[in-house]
Amino acid sequence: MSAFPSLQNDLILRTARGETTSRTPVWMMRQAGRYLPEYRKIRESHDFFEVVETPELAAEVTIQPVDRFPLDAAILFCDIMVVPEAMGLTVEMVSGRGPTFPEPLSTPDEMERLVEPDVDEALGHVFEALTVTRRKLDGRVPLIGFAGAPWTLMAYMVEGGGSSSYRAARSWLYRHPDASKALLQRTTDLIVDYLKGQIEAGAQMLQVFDSWAGLHSPETFRTFCLPYLDQIATEVKVDHPDVPLVVFAKGAHHALGALADTDYDVLSLDHTVDPSEARTLVGDRAVLQGNLDPCALYAPPEALRREVQHMLAGFGAHQHIANLGHGMLPDHDPDHARVFVKAVHEHSHRMHTV
Amino acid sequence: MSAFPSLQNDLILRTARGETTSRTPVWMMRQAGRYLPEYRKIRESHDFFEVVETPELAAEVTIQPVDRFPLDAAILFCDIMVVPEAMGLTVEMVSGRGPTFPEPLSTPDEMERLVEPDVDEALGHVFEALTVTRRKLDGRVPLIGFAGAPWTLMAYMVEGGGSSSYRAARSWLYRHPDASKALLQRTTDLIVDYLKGQIEAGAQMLQVFDSWAGLHSPETFRTFCLPYLDQIATEVKVDHPDVPLVVFAKGAHHALGALADTDYDVLSLDHTVDPSEARTLVGDRAVLQGNLDPCALYAPPEALRREVQHMLAGFGAHQHIANLGHGMLPDHDPDHARVFVKAVHEHSHRMHTV
Repeated sequence: MSAFPSLQNDLILRTARGETTSRTPVWMMRQAGRYLPEYRKIRESHDFFEVVETPELAAEVTIQPVDRFPLDAAILFCDIMVVPEAMGLTVEMVSGRGPTFPEPLSTPDEMERLVEPDVDEALGHVFEALTVTRRKLDGRVPLIGFAGAPWTLMAYMVEGGGSSSYRAARSWLYRHPDASKALLQRTTDLIVDYLKGQIEAGAQMLQVFDSWAGLHSPETFRTFCLPYLDQIATEVKVDHPDVPLVVFAKGAHHALGALADTDYDVLSLDHTVDPSEARTLVGDRAVLQGNLDPCALYAPPEALRREVQHMLAGFGAHQHIANLGHGMLPDHDPDHARVFVKAVHEHSHRMHTV
Repeated sequence: MSAFPSLQNDLILRTARGETTSRTPVWMMRQAGRYLPEYRKIRESHDFFEVVETPELAAEVTIQPVDRFPLDAAILFCDIMVVPEAMGLTVEMVSGRGPTFPEPLSTPDEMERLVEPDVDEALGHVFEALTVTRRKLDGRVPLIGFAGAPWTLMAYMVEGGGSSSYRAARSWLYRHPDASKALLQRTTDLIVDYLKGQIEAGAQMLQVFDSWAGLHSPETFRTFCLPYLDQIATEVKVDHPDVPLVVFAKGAHHALGALADTDYDVLSLDHTVDPSEARTLVGDRAVLQGNLDPCALYAPPEALRREVQHMLAGFGAHQHIANLGHGMLPDHDPDHARVFVKAVHEHSHRMHTV
């Protein structure tokens, strides 16, 4: 690994490791994106996957929110679909529909179409983007890398795109449990290599997004999500025990206890989970991240500040990384994102000094 | 009220009232619908809202699953959108998109377009459908009526149709909290009259569907869902204390305790809730309904039977109405629905005799 500029703000890393810090760190899921005019400007001349695949552009977009707001982390501008793409599936970004697979895995036989990629060849552009971004960040804040979780990627690969019920993907779990496990394992193996490669390329913290975990019953979660999530953390930690790992199993409210017993350092919570109840349940087993309702950013500044204060009080002063319960929305006002970030600074500073 | 044929199977009513019964009653949300060939046959010559608005057709479709499977209840074939329609909004059923409002309430000013309907005039076709269906059912099983919850109806009225985030509707809660409460209260008042009218027309049990309750944080649920759900139960019970009321706050896993303290007799659970944990939390305060993952119906019959057995064991022999965690899906196999219903009969019979 090449030498990177030294880090000036390691607040989020120390908090993620469970250390006591002087303030609650803050970042926002999807903090780089359409709600920012400077991002939309870039997109006027470059399409979505062009930005993802061009390290200089990805770096520029990644750093935009860090230039604008006093954030404690940058997260690489990328997409979870690069992994299914590396496995040989074609992904298109369809306006108004999101990522779409024109030829999804409609039956287990179709898994024959999948390839076992050379990670550096297939995903080298992500590694390069991380290295370029880390250099450009110049040590201002840590750089977060990420991947989609096996189940969430499977949901898209089988369904072919966004869906309200994901019933094609979910029917696989009941109709083809063994093929489902084989697909999840193949995806897991690639994700492990991908995440290790991200660390080697410059990522200082990693988040695994299981965006569709909430589709599961407690039982199917235990069978088709948890073992693969668990494996990812265990295997990444073998080589990189000091890099904090975050898992965001959106909607899997029933799984907090089980996830707290894995090797993830941080559990990211969606906004349906009560912060103080999560704290009681998880105890000291994990740091918690989240979880303001993204729609609270539509509130007038005064009301938004009260929401932030309330959330921070629920989590407590320590072992908490402030974030939203899900990503920024395209019609969010950047000024309200600033109110959110600054309110975390102010209130958490007060909480840490009393 | 005219005299109706006497009831031969009141199992579900007795269970809903907390009485000890000889077997667990069973029905399925959306048990009348597209997965049934006899329903699709009717729809070849009648569009969706024509079936809803023609009492003879609604009755026929309602009774189809009762003719086919040994169910313990019929639920009127109708749509939650009849209430917004009665309030003056135009609703269209768009193929592949579901119910759609061509002119949604994009701002609070638009609420001026809403009318205060005469319930019998605006919703008389539903009452008539209930009366006709109850007669035709001839006392075989009780007839369930239903309504959408105020928040769920507001979500559609503001958003204009199905959405992945309902951010237009949810932004109202933060931007226009008072207007939101006014809209929710107007809807609540109409729902109360509508449900009372349903009982007078022949409904023997009622379910309130808060299908989008899961979009809320615990706090916004407490502010914008719970008080209105609570009011509905309280006010309907004033006139009809003996008619069992069911509430299905889908996704509001955090609210089970609070809902157990309302006047609803039965809490319907989605499939993300663990049955035995719900039982522990709720205790004797409410009967529980649910909650097999609808996708479990894709499993081969043997696996499906095991899932049913496992679910029944989780809820225990009493104070439980077996159902799915959400509605039947259009590509479900009717033979698997039969396996589900019969497995409830068999396993629960065994549980009740040991």
